[in-house]
Amino acid sequence: MAASSSMIACNALASCPGCRTSTSLAQPDRIFLSASGTHLNSMESLTLRQLTPKPCFRRLGKIRAAVVESVDSNPATEALLEKSVNTIRFLAIDAVEKANSGHPGLPMGCAPLGHILFDEVLRYNPKNPYWFNRDRFVLSAGHGCMLHYALLHLAGYDSVKEEDLKAFRQWESRTPGHPENFETPGIEVTTGPLGQGIANAVGLALAEKHLAARFNKPDFEIVDHYTYVILGDGCQMEGVSNEASSLAGHWGLGKLIAFYDDNHISIDGDTEIAFTEDVNARFEALGWHTIWVKNGNTGYDDIRAAIKEAKAVKDKPTLIKVTTTIGYGSPNKANSYSVHGSALGSKEVDATRKNLGWPHEPFHVPEDVKSHWSQHISDGAALETEWNAKFAKYGKKYKEDADTLKDLISGELPAGWEKALPVYTPESPADATRNLSQQCLNALSKVLPGLIGGSADLASSNMTLLKMHSDFRSTSPKERNLRFGVREHGMGAICNGIAHHSHGLIPYCATFFVFTDYMRASIRIAALSLARVIYVMTHDSIGLGEDGPTHQPIEHLMSFRVMPNILMLRPADGNETAGAYRVAVLNTKRPSILALSRQKLPQLAGTSFEGVEKGGYIISDNSADSTPDLILIGTGSELEIAAKAADELRKDGRAVRVVSLVSWELFEEQSDEYKESVLPKLVSARISIEAGSSFGWEKYVGSKGKAIGIDRFGASAPAGKIYKEFGLTAENVIAAAKSL
Amino acid sequence: MAASSSMIACNALASCPGCRTSTSLAQPDRIFLSASGTHLNSMESLTLRQLTPKPCFRRLGKIRAAVVESVDSNPATEALLEKSVNTIRFLAIDAVEKANSGHPGLPMGCAPLGHILFDEVLRYNPKNPYWFNRDRFVLSAGHGCMLHYALLHLAGYDSVKEEDLKAFRQWESRTPGHPENFETPGIEVTTGPLGQGIANAVGLALAEKHLAARFNKPDFEIVDHYTYVILGDGCQMEGVSNEASSLAGHWGLGKLIAFYDDNHISIDGDTEIAFTEDVNARFEALGWHTIWVKNGNTGYDDIRAAIKEAKAVKDKPTLIKVTTTIGYGSPNKANSYSVHGSALGSKEVDATRKNLGWPHEPFHVPEDVKSHWSQHISDGAALETEWNAKFAKYGKKYKEDADTLKDLISGELPAGWEKALPVYTPESPADATRNLSQQCLNALSKVLPGLIGGSADLASSNMTLLKMHSDFRSTSPKERNLRFGVREHGMGAICNGIAHHSHGLIPYCATFFVFTDYMRASIRIAALSLARVIYVMTHDSIGLGEDGPTHQPIEHLMSFRVMPNILMLRPADGNETAGAYRVAVLNTKRPSILALSRQKLPQLAGTSFEGVEKGGYIISDNSADSTPDLILIGTGSELEIAAKAADELRKDGRAVRVVSLVSWELFEEQSDEYKESVLPKLVSARISIEAGSSFGWEKYVGSKGKAIGIDRFGASAPAGKIYKEFGLTAENVIAAAKSL
Repeated sequence: MAASSSMIACNALASCPGCRTSTSLAQPDRIFLSASGTHLNSMESLTLRQLTPKPCFRRLGKIRAAVVESVDSNPATEALLEKSVNTIRFLAIDAVEKANSGHPGLPMGCAPLGHILFDEVLRYNPKNPYWFNRDRFVLSAGHGCMLHYALLHLAGYDSVKEEDLKAFRQWESRTPGHPENFETPGIEVTTGPLGQGIANAVGLALAEKHLAARFNKPDFEIVDHYTYVILGDGCQMEGVSNEASSLAGHWGLGKLIAFYDDNHISIDGDTEIAFTEDVNARFEALGWHTIWVKNGNTGYDDIRAAIKEAKAVKDKPTLIKVTTTIGYGSPNKANSYSVHGSALGSKEVDATRKNLGWPHEPFHVPEDVKSHWSQHISDGAALETEWNAKFAKYGKKYKEDADTLKDLISGELPAGWEKALPVYTPESPADATRNLSQQCLNALSKVLPGLIGGSADLASSNMTLLKMHSDFRSTSPKERNLRFGVREHGMGAICNGIAHHSHGLIPYCATFFVFTDYMRASIRIAALSLARVIYVMTHDSIGLGEDGPTHQPIEHLMSFRVMPNILMLRPADGNETAGAYRVAVLNTKRPSILALSRQKLPQLAGTSFEGVEKGGYIISDNSADSTPDLILIGTGSELEIAAKAADELRKDGRAVRVVSLVSWELFEEQSDEYKESVLPKLVSARISIEAGSSFGWEKYVGSKGKAIGIDRFGASAPAGKIYKEFGLTAENVIAAAKSL
Repeated sequence: MAASSSMIACNALASCPGCRTSTSLAQPDRIFLSASGTHLNSMESLTLRQLTPKPCFRRLGKIRAAVVESVDSNPATEALLEKSVNTIRFLAIDAVEKANSGHPGLPMGCAPLGHILFDEVLRYNPKNPYWFNRDRFVLSAGHGCMLHYALLHLAGYDSVKEEDLKAFRQWESRTPGHPENFETPGIEVTTGPLGQGIANAVGLALAEKHLAARFNKPDFEIVDHYTYVILGDGCQMEGVSNEASSLAGHWGLGKLIAFYDDNHISIDGDTEIAFTEDVNARFEALGWHTIWVKNGNTGYDDIRAAIKEAKAVKDKPTLIKVTTTIGYGSPNKANSYSVHGSALGSKEVDATRKNLGWPHEPFHVPEDVKSHWSQHISDGAALETEWNAKFAKYGKKYKEDADTLKDLISGELPAGWEKALPVYTPESPADATRNLSQQCLNALSKVLPGLIGGSADLASSNMTLLKMHSDFRSTSPKERNLRFGVREHGMGAICNGIAHHSHGLIPYCATFFVFTDYMRASIRIAALSLARVIYVMTHDSIGLGEDGPTHQPIEHLMSFRVMPNILMLRPADGNETAGAYRVAVLNTKRPSILALSRQKLPQLAGTSFEGVEKGGYIISDNSADSTPDLILIGTGSELEIAAKAADELRKDGRAVRVVSLVSWELFEEQSDEYKESVLPKLVSARISIEAGSSFGWEKYVGSKGKAIGIDRFGASAPAGKIYKEFGLTAENVIAAAKSL
């Protein structure tokens, strides 16, 4: 049956994106042909003019007016296209109906765009969702995930079988309520919280541009893929999308193509009630190329033409506004908010079946549709085979680059990389941990080819510049210093995209610790989606001084200690800072936050990499029998205060242990024996000191101990004065010790 | 000396903004004249045509070409203007130099704009910074606060005396490192974290438009003031500013005038490295009127003309891009990042003094400048007197409205308002607390004239619509339902502006609890700046079910319990929800978050308003002697589970107490006796159950108790299934009880 529906002559090879040539349509003068099927097996570069039209036994469709000038319309294949689009619609309708939960409206409206993307445009290999050179697709309007699941299902991904569609939104299914990269191979990033996906896509496109600039050669475009994203009205309203889009325009990310599903409906009704700006004009102001497809419901050729135009614009990202009807096909609910986020209900499902001429049972995929889509399995395999062959040739000619790229793809770290980290002794000069952090970053940039990052306009305060690199810009994309501007949220979401592009990319980003508040939504998604992002958060306490309470974190340490799957590290000196970086790099499935001081701190005796790895450890203890009278626990800049207080108390003959609790999460992961060895239950006289909320310290100081912290907002004054006024002093620790 | 410099004929009254007529220049056909000075004492409305030019003995300056068509230039007064501008510059330079900390660049660049605003445009009363009908001014680029402090000082505010300038950024000074409304009368809102101020300004302008629509009469413009804001490149880059600006355009806030200090320099250097969008084009896309003043350094008339033009545009907010030189006047540091955030250094201060011809000692205000500015004290008093007289007349004619407006200004609550809150019995139907919240909001909207708010496009999920009101829109600004669109961060910052506009305005805003992550920076500023904002946060746990982990809060309850000066309330049923609203309204100096369930909950026996007020209380106890065997502690939706488990355990003869810990903050504020009466130290068998992080519960369950919670991300599945899989069940509580 595939034969009957797809026996269409390709008028020109370039007219058949389904052939999955490894070039884009926008580059007609250099084509590497697919190694599979009826096509040339040659890996040679040919120009279009050298190619004579050949019969194409694949891919349906009225061949696109967008792509070739003149083609015959073929009603049969047009019918198959319609059928495929309706298959997508009904898979979404049926899955939401069965779950009695979900969002049918977007999949119904965007099915034509989805079909064109996954059937005609995207290059991917369904049997290896992680093939490096695949095009990336992000559904920023993540609530419409049934669109993506239906497409993955049709395309032959093993992650979304029929039983997965039937388990939509159920316990332990691979089709959760919003797209989750860690649940469903084929999903690139985790979306749902609006605006994140478009910003992730900016990160993915940045990664492609960066890697292409580093690894492509005049004779080898070894990194060459697009990033496509669908975003909705909600994404457009979120500030994070404007931040990231402003950067995408600034960076000239020409291979980023965003489709704005302009359906005029959000949860509260017509967007008219809250969203009347001119979106395309805004994107033009941001430096994007913009297009408007006025009929996204049936204007297939318009969509194709827009994509062609977008690909032809190489120096700017493109926003294609696609006006669609939410819930297209539902006679009573289309174009209304009621179809956005609820099942249609059986009566309306029936009415929609009738309206769209869909006689099939739920979850049915017609045989001709199935057969048509089945081609993607061999196509995808061929694409990867072809790329692998190309990469093999590349490796012969450019061994070093190929090895590096291989590591970036696999995530393997260069042997001995850790040795690059600086080591300190108590005699090393006192320094702010933000400066020590810069030493680490610069040391690591020499040995970690995937380290890339920067600050939200605070590079000179966060100390995050990589000195051996210049700025990543539209004209210098191989560089590794990212200048995010004052856009913390966009920065965080972009880093998530970079981290998910390739296992070996290690994005870091920086701002003042207090401004994690601006980017918390993206940090949470890093934690949830297993993204190794390193957050370099300086000015981590009242120790920043005069800028005052708006800039002084108080609750932030605790607020991240509560967040699942993230490491909150607060190093006290050079060795702990280097140790924190080591931990951050090695923890590939979770992000790490490094809270770093603005102020100078001494290099302490007893701190170590190994200690950091355990999260909590003894830095000094003068007890004879490992059962001290008193345990002082500190983190970061207050470990010095604990150590000083211990020195004084020891002069009075007290047996005092000082513990650094640099990461609570890592400490909790240690064995009970180890934890008991650091904080023996017998010793109930415990004092913690930390320039942050005392809330939560009950866990370690117990009901008989005392937590010295800050349970109010900060103040604007020199740092030393605030420390003193707030009682964060060795004297206060000593007084507390005496009172216990 | 004032006389010599200001003896200039006013060609027309409208040409003398210094006369502080209570009308704007843009409203030439209706003028209420100042009751002071040489001017007409009439309160009557006159048209411009009725007025003959009169001599004006006040206000310096070459009278503005922007304002009248033809005037004589007067070098002496022009010199005084320059002197005043340089006074502002040097007050900033000197204060930063003395503190050896701060940001001189913006004040030096924006001094001309600042002078024009505070000397010629703004209507205010220095001796009563809280006069209701003042124009509001917000420095969104809060780091440049020395500009604002210098202007308040010159204008005669008691909050900023010379000694305050000298104590800039010092402990307990009234001139902290960023503008703080709670420290410095004259500062409207707390800024510094970038982008917040412009969004606050949108809230201030919204409040004005709303109150004007409600209270103005054809013969009384009793509410009539502008909101001016200066924002910088950093503010422009932040997503929150785009969110709020999009709403300002949508709402047509014509009396919002924003000055974009376009100085091309941010902390990391030229904005070219990260910010190349076309800002004015973006604002046009957002529905704003835009103007570009190309010479903000010396183009006084251009600035004036721009303001005049902005005032003439009544249906749109205006963005005036003012191109300035950061650090203007500093020969070696102007136009560079080095002048942004550090003291100039004594050498460069000297060079700048020389360059600008400033021979004076630090902090010197020349006598003629002082004398000139001193007029604002009488002008301001006159403005207020005039308005008070007008208000008295208004009150005679429109008593009810005047009484209401008076309450909105003073913050006085109507007597007996609390009685409007619904009361429930255990027999009342089970319901989701989000629905019970809606009952409260609607009940309160009838008795609280200042209640105004809405949701970030989730009104139908958050249940926040006020049924007796319609939507606040550009054409219906007297309505009280705000439609924020999917803009949580903008929403939060706008509510801060509303709260700070008038004591009696009670803004509420809503989204899913998890999306507080998007708006956390604005929530923190609400807490810091003592803003009574009510956050209606529904879908407060895994109980939301299928939407999955991106939508399920885990760490959020704890993350707000750690934040200073905010109430985190998690009511369990109808009485607790109503009690939470009561608390939220009564706590005028801190915001409250209500975490509310999506799922139905029963009305529990024992819950009460009084209990909520205490934060924690006993809802049931079957012990004979008030010393139960076991205490079960729950919050919100899990209080039901605790109650059920208690019932079962009691059947086995156990003496069990059930405690609702609806607000940890309120509970901690109770006396030790009260706390001991609820959680007696003697009873160490304690189990807490809460569908959130167990972190932090050590405080109440102690080392021998057990906290049942969730220390991982959530999952996509029906709510009941997740509760069961995560062990949040009565069975699990009973099992834990038996194991203790």
